[in-house]
Amino acid sequence: MNIEMIRAADGRLEGHVRRTPLLASPFLDEIAGRRVWIKPECLQHTGSFKFRGGWSAVSAMAPDVRAQGVLAFSSGNHAQGVALAAAKHGVPAVIIMPSDAPEMKIDNTRALGAEVVLYDRASEDRDAISARLLAERPLTLIKPFDDAFVIAGQGTCGLEIAQQAAAEGIAEADVLVCCGGGGFASGIALALEADAPGLRVRPAEPEGFDDMARSLASGAIERNDRMSGSLCDAILTLQPGEITFPILSRLAGPGLVVSEDEAMHAVALAFSRLKLVAEPGGAVALAAALFHPREIEGEDVIVTISGGNVDAGVFRQALERFGS
Amino acid sequence: MNIEMIRAADGRLEGHVRRTPLLASPFLDEIAGRRVWIKPECLQHTGSFKFRGGWSAVSAMAPDVRAQGVLAFSSGNHAQGVALAAAKHGVPAVIIMPSDAPEMKIDNTRALGAEVVLYDRASEDRDAISARLLAERPLTLIKPFDDAFVIAGQGTCGLEIAQQAAAEGIAEADVLVCCGGGGFASGIALALEADAPGLRVRPAEPEGFDDMARSLASGAIERNDRMSGSLCDAILTLQPGEITFPILSRLAGPGLVVSEDEAMHAVALAFSRLKLVAEPGGAVALAAALFHPREIEGEDVIVTISGGNVDAGVFRQALERFGS
Repeated sequence: MNIEMIRAADGRLEGHVRRTPLLASPFLDEIAGRRVWIKPECLQHTGSFKFRGGWSAVSAMAPDVRAQGVLAFSSGNHAQGVALAAAKHGVPAVIIMPSDAPEMKIDNTRALGAEVVLYDRASEDRDAISARLLAERPLTLIKPFDDAFVIAGQGTCGLEIAQQAAAEGIAEADVLVCCGGGGFASGIALALEADAPGLRVRPAEPEGFDDMARSLASGAIERNDRMSGSLCDAILTLQPGEITFPILSRLAGPGLVVSEDEAMHAVALAFSRLKLVAEPGGAVALAAALFHPREIEGEDVIVTISGGNVDAGVFRQALERFGS
Repeated sequence: MNIEMIRAADGRLEGHVRRTPLLASPFLDEIAGRRVWIKPECLQHTGSFKFRGGWSAVSAMAPDVRAQGVLAFSSGNHAQGVALAAAKHGVPAVIIMPSDAPEMKIDNTRALGAEVVLYDRASEDRDAISARLLAERPLTLIKPFDDAFVIAGQGTCGLEIAQQAAAEGIAEADVLVCCGGGGFASGIALALEADAPGLRVRPAEPEGFDDMARSLASGAIERNDRMSGSLCDAILTLQPGEITFPILSRLAGPGLVVSEDEAMHAVALAFSRLKLVAEPGGAVALAAALFHPREIEGEDVIVTISGGNVDAGVFRQALERFGS
């Protein structure tokens, strides 16, 4: 896993990925006490950065293997990213999703042409379902984060951040990345190491699911106690990946941990100040920038909004509680 | 008023304006029955295209005149665009706003450093207040749409649309533009005439405020009966401008008229499908593309989302009624 793989993914993504802009708002700068720069991957195809990794992985497969179809498990964003990448390559996709995933994510994954297999988190074993499908059908598994081609795809966002930061004259800054298993954060970290060594990744996570922050602190992979029970569904993972953790251990600064209320407040501020729809899990990095300023260094901070696939009811709740 | 003024405004805006992307969603294409391309000016500084015209006008003034300050009247988007342009030039701005303008627009205009003068639409005469302020103080009036520098600034969005359409291989299409007095529509129309003659502006308006559609149909300037009573506050004007109407009469196709419900439905679809916050008045062009497909020609349609400055309560209402 190295920078050349990210540059190769960037070539495969050319003409297919959306190059998202770098946004800002003076109102957010005032809250944060420094310049806040926003990388809005909610505007990416399928509403999250996951399309980058999905396309990278699908496009890297040999055509005859790809033609047999791909398999993914996901609460919804990786699902949609892989589904669209497969559909655009004209190959079948089977996606295993928890039955309590946000309705919009399940509906969209189906609408993008994938076969969705739902399972009950409490009573069924996702890995067993996955193993059975792989035994029965000639599908290739695309893991959500611990896969070199997926990480390489997510890293293309880091190449863009490096270019955009240079254009704005930002030589040094923390780059806050919403973090589940660490695919997005580790890809960005590798890209920044090569193209913008003054920028440093800081993983951001919700309280109770801060496995990456604890792992970075202890130097060994730590687990969460649970994998559900948060509105930040997009970034709930059991533990850091075996590929992602060593990369972040070497390159990332300390993790940032925000409350679910802070994430929902950030959703409301992205609405009013950026005119963007962020999902709670996609807003944890913004929440860290706005509400944990003393844990961040420098005059500028760069923040990913990693996704915007939020059900209307949850969004209304954010506006009711935190909308002015 | 000609294309050279737009190109000059584009030079003055360089490095200050946000070049907004051209977005799309397969889900919207399916509803509309053709490819729908979105120009999201809700992502522009101050949350609407009006910053383009504000900056164009303020930057075109002689420094000693500009230093005396500028005056504008506006329900809120032109207000914020002029306020930010003045603040970035370090000059004072006085903005006359109706007291029933959306709270967010009044608050933001003040927060951008402008002096806000509120008036009651029912009992007070805006033009008299404006005349008094201009008599008492050495301010320069920047009209919201019937001003060549303002139109030139809005036209820079048309230069971008021409470039972006060419990059996507779109040679012929209707370009639906949210329309109040016609500043945005006429600026874009002039830019497209020069740089993308196969693209044609179609003004979009809400029912009851379709002065431009009726004026284009009759060939003479027609008035609305009222100037309030719609959630589409951004685009409620009494009548087309004296500069804008002849331009649109020569270059635009027939106007499109949508109901307020269709505009609110489009707000909900911009939320779920584009991850964008559109205000109702900024969503009328999208509503026309989605719900009036038979009035539009061609395989592609380009749609402006002109602004996103909507109070949380109105947005929640759109999601409650039309969010899935």
